[in-house]
Amino acid sequence: MNSKKNESVRERILATASRLFYKQGYANTGINQITAESGVVKSTLYQQFRSKEELLIAYLEQVGKQLNVELSSKIEQFEQPEERILSVFDFLKELMSGKEFYGCNFLNIISEIPEDAVVIRAQILKQKNNIRKLFHELLKPLGKTHLSDELYILFEGALIANKVHHELWAVDKAKNMVILILKHT
Amino acid sequence: MNSKKNESVRERILATASRLFYKQGYANTGINQITAESGVVKSTLYQQFRSKEELLIAYLEQVGKQLNVELSSKIEQFEQPEERILSVFDFLKELMSGKEFYGCNFLNIISEIPEDAVVIRAQILKQKNNIRKLFHELLKPLGKTHLSDELYILFEGALIANKVHHELWAVDKAKNMVILILKHT
Repeated sequence: MNSKKNESVRERILATASRLFYKQGYANTGINQITAESGVVKSTLYQQFRSKEELLIAYLEQVGKQLNVELSSKIEQFEQPEERILSVFDFLKELMSGKEFYGCNFLNIISEIPEDAVVIRAQILKQKNNIRKLFHELLKPLGKTHLSDELYILFEGALIANKVHHELWAVDKAKNMVILILKHT
Repeated sequence: MNSKKNESVRERILATASRLFYKQGYANTGINQITAESGVVKSTLYQQFRSKEELLIAYLEQVGKQLNVELSSKIEQFEQPEERILSVFDFLKELMSGKEFYGCNFLNIISEIPEDAVVIRAQILKQKNNIRKLFHELLKPLGKTHLSDELYILFEGALIANKVHHELWAVDKAKNMVILILKHT
């Protein structure tokens, strides 16, 4: 009973922190706002998370897992190797079309943290290296694994250009380049 | 005399703010640190810049102008249209190889500010739309202006992937894709 209660308090704090980190940024979000908006006292928060950085890591872990599951289930709708690759970019476009989309959770944080924030950087790199590995796997049936980082750069380029311009042409152009590259290499 | 002195005080404050905004982020940099490190009192800073946001705009304007000049002078070293286009990516690689490179000044800020920070967003968009126009101009002699946003996405993808991975393969891969796209479209 007690551990269940702790779990829900922990989840509530993490959900609040995640929403604020994503919408208004990590540096712009203070512990006071997180406790106020999740309705807990500070000592309760620190029982669950030793620091704001620990909350950030938990947020990145959770959102990374969730995105990976959603992306996999999108890809699994297709059988042909090229369709499976292109579905990654359709997934991006669906994300970008969402009302509460404020850019890539991971790219947002990488631009905010100091270069020597080793633990946070490692968490971001883990997620991004997963995407690189995913492209590698998706390219295997085509015998074109040497293109995985090309696709990854188009993936990142689409995300950051959408963040800047708030428009969908970036992901459409990226997808067109994927088609072209697969055809000509 | 007095206006000259004001100019140098203004420049000193802006140089300090620029260094701190770039290295440690906008939200992480307080007015107190800027005054302390530029050796002025707060009232002097506020005589020159009405707010931290005004300092940020001045920083983005200045660094944007400087980058545009450096980029133009890089491009002007080449005559052939394709070489001129590729020199943009060589310019990126030189920037990334610098010791004090912490990513694109503009992409760093876009990830930090709230979506409704209209004035700051406009300044960032101005710079990024300049890059899109530049690719448009560079593609004219080849009759391929329809590819300008494709090149722009590769430009942004290279910058942000370098920010994440701290490695130069991103810009090499982006340059290879530019060559491929110019050849096959």
